[in-house]
Amino acid sequence: MSEKALNYIQENRASLLEKLNEFLSIPSVSTDSSHKDDVRNAADFIITYLKEIGFENAEIQETAGHPLVFAEYNGAGADAPTVLFYGHYDVQPVDPIELWESDPFKPEVRDGRLYARGSSDDKGQVFMHLAVFEAYMNTEGELPINVKVCIEGEEEIGSENLYHILMEKKEQFQADFAVISDSGMAAKNQPTILYGLKGFTGIEITVNGPDHDLHSGMYGGAVRNPIMALSHILSSMKDENEVITVDGFYDDVEPLTEDERKLMEQAPGEDFVETAGVPETVSEKGYTAKEHTMGRPTFEINGIYGGYQGEGTKTIIPSQATAKITCRLVPGQDPGKIQALLEAHVNKVAPSGVNVEVKKEKLSARAYKVEPTHPLIKKAAESYTKAFGKDTVYLRMGGSIPVVEWIDDIYKMPIILLGFGTPEDRLHSPNESFPLDSFDKGMETLVYYWNEVKN
Amino acid sequence: MSEKALNYIQENRASLLEKLNEFLSIPSVSTDSSHKDDVRNAADFIITYLKEIGFENAEIQETAGHPLVFAEYNGAGADAPTVLFYGHYDVQPVDPIELWESDPFKPEVRDGRLYARGSSDDKGQVFMHLAVFEAYMNTEGELPINVKVCIEGEEEIGSENLYHILMEKKEQFQADFAVISDSGMAAKNQPTILYGLKGFTGIEITVNGPDHDLHSGMYGGAVRNPIMALSHILSSMKDENEVITVDGFYDDVEPLTEDERKLMEQAPGEDFVETAGVPETVSEKGYTAKEHTMGRPTFEINGIYGGYQGEGTKTIIPSQATAKITCRLVPGQDPGKIQALLEAHVNKVAPSGVNVEVKKEKLSARAYKVEPTHPLIKKAAESYTKAFGKDTVYLRMGGSIPVVEWIDDIYKMPIILLGFGTPEDRLHSPNESFPLDSFDKGMETLVYYWNEVKN
Repeated sequence: MSEKALNYIQENRASLLEKLNEFLSIPSVSTDSSHKDDVRNAADFIITYLKEIGFENAEIQETAGHPLVFAEYNGAGADAPTVLFYGHYDVQPVDPIELWESDPFKPEVRDGRLYARGSSDDKGQVFMHLAVFEAYMNTEGELPINVKVCIEGEEEIGSENLYHILMEKKEQFQADFAVISDSGMAAKNQPTILYGLKGFTGIEITVNGPDHDLHSGMYGGAVRNPIMALSHILSSMKDENEVITVDGFYDDVEPLTEDERKLMEQAPGEDFVETAGVPETVSEKGYTAKEHTMGRPTFEINGIYGGYQGEGTKTIIPSQATAKITCRLVPGQDPGKIQALLEAHVNKVAPSGVNVEVKKEKLSARAYKVEPTHPLIKKAAESYTKAFGKDTVYLRMGGSIPVVEWIDDIYKMPIILLGFGTPEDRLHSPNESFPLDSFDKGMETLVYYWNEVKN
Repeated sequence: MSEKALNYIQENRASLLEKLNEFLSIPSVSTDSSHKDDVRNAADFIITYLKEIGFENAEIQETAGHPLVFAEYNGAGADAPTVLFYGHYDVQPVDPIELWESDPFKPEVRDGRLYARGSSDDKGQVFMHLAVFEAYMNTEGELPINVKVCIEGEEEIGSENLYHILMEKKEQFQADFAVISDSGMAAKNQPTILYGLKGFTGIEITVNGPDHDLHSGMYGGAVRNPIMALSHILSSMKDENEVITVDGFYDDVEPLTEDERKLMEQAPGEDFVETAGVPETVSEKGYTAKEHTMGRPTFEINGIYGGYQGEGTKTIIPSQATAKITCRLVPGQDPGKIQALLEAHVNKVAPSGVNVEVKKEKLSARAYKVEPTHPLIKKAAESYTKAFGKDTVYLRMGGSIPVVEWIDDIYKMPIILLGFGTPEDRLHSPNESFPLDSFDKGMETLVYYWNEVKN
């Protein structure tokens, strides 16, 4: 039954793109309160579209922040599976605006790419789903599956209210599996199944020394230097082999199997030396850079500050020094336990003469992994391959998507990550874009997929 | 002949303080180019004052940076000794301004202390000398000694141009001995002879990693974290016993004799825990805090920065991290050799995957020490005791005054450090202040001293 829907998409490509451009033109920047109305306009755009398509109960759900869009379609009948489709309609800020080659909210096609804020993350990908639903409804008069739509407006500000809603409205959002298109492929036109995401957690360490900056001549030799104390603490947490030396940190890590290590080595990967501009890659002893980024936990200091940062010299012993740390976690690791281990380590090694504070980051997430052999995954891979004409590769990613953990945690349903972005999309940066190839073949993939999973 | 001068100071205390306040109100922050004119105004203030007092040749000497004030008085005759009086009229920046309880450039007396930037370091102490010269001239019509005045405007930025001037104009600045009041006493109202100063030198370490900040999910596990690399380097330079672990660092250190260690233990010391606001003192293993601050070299990290410093979390691997380090040196140590040892150490321990740069601070100084038994020292001690009514103690100080090394090096003349600051003065910090007791008794000390050394 997918032929007609495919034809519909091809025949209506121009008007669908025009409609997408209308959606992308709404500056739904969630972090900027001056765009509050724009964010709501983007939600209204989706509601209107869903109603046109024929969704029931299409409604705004108010939150403490920006609204969430909910809708459902039950026309496929009780025997058909129900999918929870998650996406987000808010976008990142556009600064620095002067680096954009075209207006971020006036979509423009150049060299086969659609340039606009949100074209890839995530409005473009959300729109593809809506267009495919339209195609099925306008040709077959029905969808192959039942659908619950959940499109939020706060993903770029940490999905502040989503967890609460997912917990509160368990029955309303319950489904057989979830589909999310908010990620990318290993390369342009390279069908990619993302079967694992890292979790994450973080702490901030502040070393408090003297109650004011001291003259290093008067006090040097009598007072512990907070920056040196912090350096001792930090250097005790990861060694030069990139092994994290916090007691218990690896205890619950699900080991990489030989099969998985082979899969990772075969996966197309980016040239880290080239794209990061480093002299060489460095990874955990015993693991390659690919294995470490995809399948082993990491510990990164994201920022450090203390004392004098200006030109030249200021001969002080600073009163304070702070470091911000986040860890990316793999399956098996519990974010809360990791935070506790980090804190215990810091307290254990903290030197005398200073007071050390550990602040635990509120936002944490477990890692997520679905077996690459799961039938819903295999069907996704087949749909990708059929649309893109190329074998699908299987990847785990070093990044984290909190909503994945929450859906996993609350609903215990399989989550299928059907991403169509590419490494060149410049998410969160100036000149975000999305390849029209992904737009066309992505919708084709979705047409196949809904048809495949319908029974 | 000192009676009249003493009376003059007492009788004119209010107007002298008013004049000092006028001087302190000029924001002569030498490091901030927006205050360039203010710095010059402070120099002009001194020139005008010196001319009023009756100094000859009072003149601005232009430098590549801020001007130097020179003047001389030869009225004491060929038989009287000539003193080179050195001081500085520039001050430290006032940041963080929000921590000041009163405007740093609107002097205010609270609880017997004069609060203002520069009240202790060094405008207040410079002013006391000028006031004493005024007192002698307006009562006796002459000074007991010949004087050469050298007051610079670049001390807080490393006296960038002074060395060159002292070298170029050897004849003009030549004198029998030098007097400097840019230091402190062991405690408030405790007469103190400072017979030794530390030298110093410094380096800046920059660790360069990726050529832009990276997403910690995509690159974590493939790239060396520059902040962690810097922490490893720093923590390898001083251990938790406060022993500097850089090869050769202590090789040329002149050891403390048992006699000197006894002198140091007997010297009244400040309560570091109280004045620094630390939980406890920490010093080099085998040495007390007093011994370490006065007589052993130190290694301090003055500042560190890299990556994200804002609120919350930003999950990046930063492209760069920098630390600023200065060492205080003791007699025997050569600053250039110490810089070379520090650089060699950093290069030895620098991890792979990053490029590490070491920048050597231009400004360095050897330590200085004068024998406590020198006649000019003994007369200073007597003058202090007479003014403060208390026995004078002998100290070495952890601080450094580059000009002391330079005068020692170029002119080979004795240098007498007549400091009147107190440990509570908060030099270089918010709420700098100077006790009015020091103001009154300090001027009295100077009146006695010039009278004592006149023949």
